[in-house]
Amino acid sequence: MVVAVVGVGLVGGSVGLAARTRLGARVRGVDPRAAEALRAGAVDETCGDLRSALEGADAAFVATPLRHVAETLQAVLHAAPEDCVVTDVGSTKRAIVAAIDDPRFVGGHPLAGGEAAGVQHARVELFEGATWYLTPTARTSGVLYERLHRLLGGLGARPAAIDAEAHDRLMATVSHLPHVLANLLVEQATAALEGDTVPATGPSFRDATRVAGANADLWPDILLANRDALGRQIDVAVVRLGEVRAALDDSDRDALRRWQEQAGDARRDLLQAALASGPTRELRVAVPNRPGVVADVALGLGRAGINISDMSLSPSPDFSSGEIALWVREADVERATQIVAEHGTLV
Amino acid sequence: MVVAVVGVGLVGGSVGLAARTRLGARVRGVDPRAAEALRAGAVDETCGDLRSALEGADAAFVATPLRHVAETLQAVLHAAPEDCVVTDVGSTKRAIVAAIDDPRFVGGHPLAGGEAAGVQHARVELFEGATWYLTPTARTSGVLYERLHRLLGGLGARPAAIDAEAHDRLMATVSHLPHVLANLLVEQATAALEGDTVPATGPSFRDATRVAGANADLWPDILLANRDALGRQIDVAVVRLGEVRAALDDSDRDALRRWQEQAGDARRDLLQAALASGPTRELRVAVPNRPGVVADVALGLGRAGINISDMSLSPSPDFSSGEIALWVREADVERATQIVAEHGTLV
Repeated sequence: MVVAVVGVGLVGGSVGLAARTRLGARVRGVDPRAAEALRAGAVDETCGDLRSALEGADAAFVATPLRHVAETLQAVLHAAPEDCVVTDVGSTKRAIVAAIDDPRFVGGHPLAGGEAAGVQHARVELFEGATWYLTPTARTSGVLYERLHRLLGGLGARPAAIDAEAHDRLMATVSHLPHVLANLLVEQATAALEGDTVPATGPSFRDATRVAGANADLWPDILLANRDALGRQIDVAVVRLGEVRAALDDSDRDALRRWQEQAGDARRDLLQAALASGPTRELRVAVPNRPGVVADVALGLGRAGINISDMSLSPSPDFSSGEIALWVREADVERATQIVAEHGTLV
Repeated sequence: MVVAVVGVGLVGGSVGLAARTRLGARVRGVDPRAAEALRAGAVDETCGDLRSALEGADAAFVATPLRHVAETLQAVLHAAPEDCVVTDVGSTKRAIVAAIDDPRFVGGHPLAGGEAAGVQHARVELFEGATWYLTPTARTSGVLYERLHRLLGGLGARPAAIDAEAHDRLMATVSHLPHVLANLLVEQATAALEGDTVPATGPSFRDATRVAGANADLWPDILLANRDALGRQIDVAVVRLGEVRAALDDSDRDALRRWQEQAGDARRDLLQAALASGPTRELRVAVPNRPGVVADVALGLGRAGINISDMSLSPSPDFSSGEIALWVREADVERATQIVAEHGTLV
């Protein structure tokens, strides 16, 4: 397998390392700092242009800073073979997916990274157990989606399909707003100290502000790329803060208590899916050979929080229909069966 | 040494466990659920009334829920011997310190705890390396302050003096506002999902919301006890969120970038003090025998972020003056020398 990585930093470098080490892939890198990528073992070779990097490639990852992703994807798709799956790792997906109209493209976003950027911090296990969101559309090739799903599983990740718009809405609340609030917290704590130093701020502050001031080269673009959804969430936060302040002013202990209990329940529900694991079982479904059917099945399961631990496609000889085999947790089989039955016939 | 613990839950129970195990103290507990405290090994014996618990006690910890602390402290001080130091572990300090006027009392607040409440979760190492804020006043007995400082060090904690008002102002930003924002984040993420489930919300969300929905029995009282300072910080947050929204609306990449860089620097500065360690050196200062001089020295060093790793007092034979020996980090000796010289004569 030949994998091209365009932009070999922390994430691109870790893709290269994992693809080489875990999958025995031949990895070609394209990056202005090619020597560093080679030294880190992230690539087998570096290429000066996309054409040579993509010749005969099975998969291509665009892992440049977010603001260059769309134009880089266009160039990569122009140079890539007909049967090469092309993906990116950008933190927001709506604008990118809207800009690219090509059956070989699947938008992606691994929920992994770190405070330290650069290929020198790349790690073979960066994606181990991490959810890797994919945003297939009706245009996406089912065969190439399956290849990417399997490749990401091979890197140690848990691929999961999600609609691009839902992805950005979700990220506004679980990533972008937390980054904004973390910055606010350190600002306010610093101001409150009025120049004093303190021996400790406590473990809850350390956790709540872990992402404060994260990579200043990348984050302004991420926040701006999702400014509509993030702006709406900021507005909601302002309204809710006003309500909390009113409860404090009214000494409304009962309201605060109910709020506290609801938040505890909500967090448990939110994190439960991420902790789910267990034995898996195979589900097989025959589907018509229409574009987007694989995306529909994957997105339907993703919306229900059902993890596809592996998948494989077998087209019928005349390509008029095909069969999808999916592995899901035993506990999810019943719900998964209902969802896949909407798109085909259970085998 | 005899230690009385009034309210034997997670924190009180851990005080008992650590005092028994690490200091060989005899620990008497007062709690409606006495049997549980005994079973957890948190106390040697339980007492049905304060009088018997405090007979001959060297130190007493009030570790009840926050709303009962002030009245419990009054009752404990009424029952305690003349030379018994009495402290509490309440999360806010201004109201409690204002309510108690007794030289035996030192307000306290360990920056330790956990998501799980109750004596069954008490741990001997709960305070290991944790800052334990103390709020001595001009009324506080220097001898009893020294005893408490040493006792807390013996439990594994790092005691640090802070003014009660500064403590509450600090906690509004490093603890209470983070709790409010964590609740907001889980609410907003849940709402944004519109009933969908997701396989993962990512590690930054997990960290940012670790304290969401923390103990609903205790937190409404903590937030209400500090509602003035917390309310002001909520107002600041609302104003700042408006500014961030404006920067997003204006696509002001430079402003976002500067903000991101400043937040990163601020966080490093805030957490640096907590990480400081290294070889220590003794400083000795002769001080006049006036009430509050020990508190003044401890508060002055605390304000400068200088950790007193150990201290000891030796009164002169006629009690007209005394000597304080302090151990501070070598790196802090110069600044510490300047501060203690304001209160006495270096020896």
